[in-house]
Amino acid sequence: MSDEFFIPKLAVFGVGLIGGSLSIGLKKANVVGHVIGVGRSLTNLNKALELGVIDEIQSDPLLATADADVIVLATPVNTVVRMLEKIEPALDQQKIVTDVGSVKGEIVTEAERILGDKINRFIPGHPIAGKEKSGVEAAVGNLFENHNVVLTPLLSSDKSAYRVIEKMWQIVGAEVTKMGISSHDRVLSITSHLPHLLSYTMMNFLSNSTERELCYEMTAGGFYDFTRTASSDPEMWRDISFMNRHQLLEHLSEFQTELATIAKLIEDGDEQAVEKLFFSAKEARSRLLDRRRHG
Amino acid sequence: MSDEFFIPKLAVFGVGLIGGSLSIGLKKANVVGHVIGVGRSLTNLNKALELGVIDEIQSDPLLATADADVIVLATPVNTVVRMLEKIEPALDQQKIVTDVGSVKGEIVTEAERILGDKINRFIPGHPIAGKEKSGVEAAVGNLFENHNVVLTPLLSSDKSAYRVIEKMWQIVGAEVTKMGISSHDRVLSITSHLPHLLSYTMMNFLSNSTERELCYEMTAGGFYDFTRTASSDPEMWRDISFMNRHQLLEHLSEFQTELATIAKLIEDGDEQAVEKLFFSAKEARSRLLDRRRHG
Repeated sequence: MSDEFFIPKLAVFGVGLIGGSLSIGLKKANVVGHVIGVGRSLTNLNKALELGVIDEIQSDPLLATADADVIVLATPVNTVVRMLEKIEPALDQQKIVTDVGSVKGEIVTEAERILGDKINRFIPGHPIAGKEKSGVEAAVGNLFENHNVVLTPLLSSDKSAYRVIEKMWQIVGAEVTKMGISSHDRVLSITSHLPHLLSYTMMNFLSNSTERELCYEMTAGGFYDFTRTASSDPEMWRDISFMNRHQLLEHLSEFQTELATIAKLIEDGDEQAVEKLFFSAKEARSRLLDRRRHG
Repeated sequence: MSDEFFIPKLAVFGVGLIGGSLSIGLKKANVVGHVIGVGRSLTNLNKALELGVIDEIQSDPLLATADADVIVLATPVNTVVRMLEKIEPALDQQKIVTDVGSVKGEIVTEAERILGDKINRFIPGHPIAGKEKSGVEAAVGNLFENHNVVLTPLLSSDKSAYRVIEKMWQIVGAEVTKMGISSHDRVLSITSHLPHLLSYTMMNFLSNSTERELCYEMTAGGFYDFTRTASSDPEMWRDISFMNRHQLLEHLSEFQTELATIAKLIEDGDEQAVEKLFFSAKEARSRLLDRRRHG
């Protein structure tokens, strides 16, 4: 596959965990000629250059785009739209743009407005991979191995542009799934955005308790795991929560209803119904673990 | 310490993960003479005998108690009270009883009723240790090392009986904390019972989604950790939820209010307030991790 596939010049906007890992993976597979790094922090870009993750630093988004064949916007979600605005004049029907944002709906709506006819060159993406650590020093070439990357192409998306982005992710080991835009935002709201919100809220709930010190002392493994995502970057999750707010609020409201239901069952002393709920949850999680093991 | 401390005969009711691990730990420290195993499943007790976790099987709770110096009720929470009723006639002012139940209020209330004047010999306890696996085959001598064991003695509790149970847990490596009964039930409701309820509910929420299959496919590490406790024993958690229902429902209601607050902030577009909440949660979790590292 790699024999036929080659990106002469790749521009990576945001050379952090995701952008950096993609670049390392593509370089290892010898399918990229030259990587241009674009970003806010010169310290980080110098580090990336030093580590060989990128080959060149370019501070001007327009020049970086003019010079590149494939442009990966690996910046935080709220910056993707701003970057699209900046690079639009340099885009043409040869270049391909993709992003890695955790929310797709709002980005695509804005992209359509900004890119106009050039929207066919934009292939929206979302690699479902991450660590608690961030920055180029956390980047590794195998970050995406056996991880899902969702692509949400539009009806207008150029088919060969889609295949380039699909292949790019497959080469670094990812499983590429094509999904509708709103389906992506609904699914990720359930699997990721809502759990993050609950985890943050639970951590604050403990921390605001009048018996905070005893609570801190008495936490065990279960609580650590439950709140692991509360260690995630607050700005990033503020942006994701707001970008996907319609879906997230709908799910949160439904989740609140489920909580009210179980509260009522406990109040009513319906032990059988509560056990049934716990049992079906345990079964569902077993299915999840089976899939992970065999997936 | 072990030189002075010795339990000639120990009766363990429920030779599973907790009861079995305690027995193994005490045997390794050479501070127990003879361990009598009591339980429902003869298969499990035979296994425990075979593994050397216990020295004798006794199916009659009364005979086991009559023969023992220290009685550990390591059965599920809802069985503790029933066992107290069964063993009460054999208790005297030399014997000591303790339990390992995750809820203390209801057990103590019942114990006072059942034991009458002998209540001074009951030292309520709760080792905060566990694994997803259960049964005597999961038992290990170091399960309690660097884990908290809460003891909630009553005003009437015999001081030397308390010290025996305290030392017993310290010998197997636990950190013993003395706590008030309602304080224990409030704290554990926050650190354990509410998170379990949320985890079970989240797992069902995903599983009942119309896009279940895609959801299953798109889960990543965050969701696995968030729902780890949904793999816990449904019967055990039904019992804990009902035994601590007053506290749990109060906290659940408060938690619902917190969720409504953050929903309102997102609806109102108050990005700053949401970021602040996420940030304080992240800080709180850092404190938690620091404690774990140094604790």
